[in-house]
Amino acid sequence: MEGPDVASISITIQIIMLVLTFITGHLLRRKKIMVIHEASAALILGVLAGLVVRASGEKGGFKDWMNFNNEFFFYFLLPPIIFESGWSLNLKPFFGNFGAICTFAFAGTLISTFGIGILMYLFGLFKWTYSMPFLVCLSFGALISATDPVTVLSIFHELGTDADLYAYVFGESVLNDAVAIVMYKTVLSFISGTVSNRGVLQAVSFFFITFVGSFSIGALAGVLSALLFKYGGFQDKRLGIIESCLVVLFPYLAYNVADALELSGIVSILFAGITMKYYTAPNLSSQAQKITTSFFQMLSKLSETFVFIYIGLGTFLDKQSWNRFGFTFFTIVSILIARTLNVYPMSALINRFRPESRKIHRNQQHALCFSGLRGAMAFALARQSVTDLPSGHGYVLLTATLLTIFFSVLLIGGMTSYALKLLRIECHGPEHEDTEIGERTSEEMEEIVQNQSEVKNKAKAKNTELTKTKDKISEKLRKFKSDTSFTTLNTKYLKPFLQADPRDDASEINQVQEQSQHFPRPPVSYEDEDNFSESTALLRNSQR
Amino acid sequence: MEGPDVASISITIQIIMLVLTFITGHLLRRKKIMVIHEASAALILGVLAGLVVRASGEKGGFKDWMNFNNEFFFYFLLPPIIFESGWSLNLKPFFGNFGAICTFAFAGTLISTFGIGILMYLFGLFKWTYSMPFLVCLSFGALISATDPVTVLSIFHELGTDADLYAYVFGESVLNDAVAIVMYKTVLSFISGTVSNRGVLQAVSFFFITFVGSFSIGALAGVLSALLFKYGGFQDKRLGIIESCLVVLFPYLAYNVADALELSGIVSILFAGITMKYYTAPNLSSQAQKITTSFFQMLSKLSETFVFIYIGLGTFLDKQSWNRFGFTFFTIVSILIARTLNVYPMSALINRFRPESRKIHRNQQHALCFSGLRGAMAFALARQSVTDLPSGHGYVLLTATLLTIFFSVLLIGGMTSYALKLLRIECHGPEHEDTEIGERTSEEMEEIVQNQSEVKNKAKAKNTELTKTKDKISEKLRKFKSDTSFTTLNTKYLKPFLQADPRDDASEINQVQEQSQHFPRPPVSYEDEDNFSESTALLRNSQR
Repeated sequence: MEGPDVASISITIQIIMLVLTFITGHLLRRKKIMVIHEASAALILGVLAGLVVRASGEKGGFKDWMNFNNEFFFYFLLPPIIFESGWSLNLKPFFGNFGAICTFAFAGTLISTFGIGILMYLFGLFKWTYSMPFLVCLSFGALISATDPVTVLSIFHELGTDADLYAYVFGESVLNDAVAIVMYKTVLSFISGTVSNRGVLQAVSFFFITFVGSFSIGALAGVLSALLFKYGGFQDKRLGIIESCLVVLFPYLAYNVADALELSGIVSILFAGITMKYYTAPNLSSQAQKITTSFFQMLSKLSETFVFIYIGLGTFLDKQSWNRFGFTFFTIVSILIARTLNVYPMSALINRFRPESRKIHRNQQHALCFSGLRGAMAFALARQSVTDLPSGHGYVLLTATLLTIFFSVLLIGGMTSYALKLLRIECHGPEHEDTEIGERTSEEMEEIVQNQSEVKNKAKAKNTELTKTKDKISEKLRKFKSDTSFTTLNTKYLKPFLQADPRDDASEINQVQEQSQHFPRPPVSYEDEDNFSESTALLRNSQR
Repeated sequence: MEGPDVASISITIQIIMLVLTFITGHLLRRKKIMVIHEASAALILGVLAGLVVRASGEKGGFKDWMNFNNEFFFYFLLPPIIFESGWSLNLKPFFGNFGAICTFAFAGTLISTFGIGILMYLFGLFKWTYSMPFLVCLSFGALISATDPVTVLSIFHELGTDADLYAYVFGESVLNDAVAIVMYKTVLSFISGTVSNRGVLQAVSFFFITFVGSFSIGALAGVLSALLFKYGGFQDKRLGIIESCLVVLFPYLAYNVADALELSGIVSILFAGITMKYYTAPNLSSQAQKITTSFFQMLSKLSETFVFIYIGLGTFLDKQSWNRFGFTFFTIVSILIARTLNVYPMSALINRFRPESRKIHRNQQHALCFSGLRGAMAFALARQSVTDLPSGHGYVLLTATLLTIFFSVLLIGGMTSYALKLLRIECHGPEHEDTEIGERTSEEMEEIVQNQSEVKNKAKAKNTELTKTKDKISEKLRKFKSDTSFTTLNTKYLKPFLQADPRDDASEINQVQEQSQHFPRPPVSYEDEDNFSESTALLRNSQR
């Protein structure tokens, strides 16, 4: 009524798509169908809706409200997804494999960019497909080398792969976005002729400034929020909502400050998530811990699902260059070759520095090679290239990128579970094995309910036990870690400075929880959070 | 990095404003300062930020990202606020006073529109102030008659007034927006000359269609969601997040469908909130109940706070007609007179139909007269009037509306707590009386912690007792209600059709809870939600 009807009709259609996607996803999980993911369903539904809108003639601004909008993606959809992944990240495999992740993200993406760029240039030179200047090919190599954290999270989280593999794949996908964006910008500056040969050195230093700067801003947001909640006097259940409102503002602050300073918002908000989970979360009331965790889980799930619908909508609403299927074919070939040239040599390099027990084994390498999924990140960059690149090359790149994403999500994504099984990678089936629950008889339910109180009591006993185990483990850890410098800095100065009670150690609690679960990211379970926050609160209170 | 820096700098400033507002609000509550509200603080901070942006020359599109945007307000900020108020509404005082609320909202707004319109026309005619044609005056009367639910929620919720007064004030403010919008549109159609004298009759029927249509769409969203969660097989803790994602989509669907059909999204989402709390919530898992409740509480609190910052930002970024302070003075005079002409006669009318015990007493009438707060709703309509009205009248109306909002929020809002005390309206002081908590000594905290487990056990015992009491009360209620037709329809057909267990009655549980609390809206307490959902789950399970 108040705005133009176009807006409300567009939003209505998008919400209906979301509802249908969630219901489809729910049915797929119940029927144990793993070839089609929720992400695939979202993509297909989006395409269909976009087709209907286009068929209706795109009258009166529907395109403005329905089509993929880079700003909406970067400022609203992406931040909660990346923050949540940082907040719920299992720190041990991530930092334990940090060197390997950086190798894949930095050197790997460099190989991928040049690999794809050179191959596409050669294919063009041989007149096998659409020909572009070398620098344009290189910019394409950069933008399409960004493996997508949203797609990776969406597909690997549902499958539940082994923790190390998940850390490689997810860590690479988050960090290489920054690399891809910086590479893309550098190549652009060469195309526009604004830099001389010194540009390469500039690019390298630019990249390190970007990475270190973004990391620092994220960590600063964590430190500031930890101090606010340590001294702010919020530790009261009844202030849970206000406390939570304040907490969720800090990651957005980190993201936008980094962005405003031309750094990487993604890297910044990821490390804000990690730092805040480690230093800020233990300073919050148990209410606020629960509320913020579920708030971000929800926001992230909604954004993640919507991203695929949004890409789908863009398919027929963006101007495309459809007669380039050959180019798409060669793009996919190049990507696969470049991925091979990235994963196996880099794995060999990493393995040279690792003891036998920690080597990336053959099957993990195959899985890594398989998991270079492309998604919204590449799509957003490709849309930007339409305005950035000369002679309409951008439209060709956009169409090729879009079709590559379809190939990634529908085909590679759909095959992932089977591939992982084939490779004998630990795979727990669809999230939470909820298949039969809807069909449980009422007697079964009654039985479950009767068992519930027993289970609760046991859980409490276990919790106390876990606290004891935790103490022992942290004691051992302290001894073990005492020789590394960051740990000393952390235990002696950072934690006492930032935490209301330095013994509230999220990572240690996580480690204890790990013993009873195989999931790389803890499944979306409120009960766990309850235990977590209860034990945290218990710990904090017991010291007062 | 990815978008224009303008966007990220603007968002950064807005987030910093939000952080400062929350911290200021927290300090104000701790220091028991009640003259300045969180809303006032937000407004002032917004004005200051707007001034800085303006002083910096509004370069490069900052205005686009910082200035009040009607679409962002109507499609993103408003829906969660109104839904949350419906979801957390105490049904008894609302429906118990529904006749009175409708009288104030419908007849009262009509009186207010004509009162302000005629007075402003006369003031212009006497050359006391800026003169406008009668129909323009009437359109101003309509747009400024919308008392604002956001302002009312923000100020009255913090104060905790008596339940009936809260129901009048809040109910009126939500429903009269629809009236004001329809009146405004009708007057506009007279100005543009598209309707004949039959227009009045058209307007009346148009209004009823709008109201009934919007209500139906909201109720339909409630019914559909109730059925989805009754039969969808979601009743599993581990699906809490997906369940919650689906739940929150329905109110947005109701809002946008109503909007797309040119009905009132506000009325629709309010009734979606009420229906969904009553029929859908009991069908959800206890996890999803907690998650959705806190999700909407947070989203609503963030939006509510941001609305005032947003209005403040608009002050110096919108084109204004500043040399009209006289006009503003007469506007405020007209508003006060029209409010008096609305509240006292309507109260007298309502009291004629009420028994002695239920009459709106004198002090409540004064408080009602006092509480006609204007806010974002009037602001958004005034901004629209700039394009709607001829001869630049819109700029004068916009400035007058803005200054009236300042008067409302800063002065009337600031005086509300004292006025209510003076009128001896039950007032519990600032939300949750958290003043001393931050300063508690550690010994006190220890004591509190030790008492905690005892309290928990007592709470459980009380819960069982409450369940028994609830059964008795609902038995009595059933007998008492059996003569009214909706209750019979509800108990015999609607509840068995829509609820997994028809005994899960949110309103009855609420009534039981009421016995132990005075707050009109239950305070933002997770603990209460725990009890609520626990007892609901207990009840549901015990029947299986």
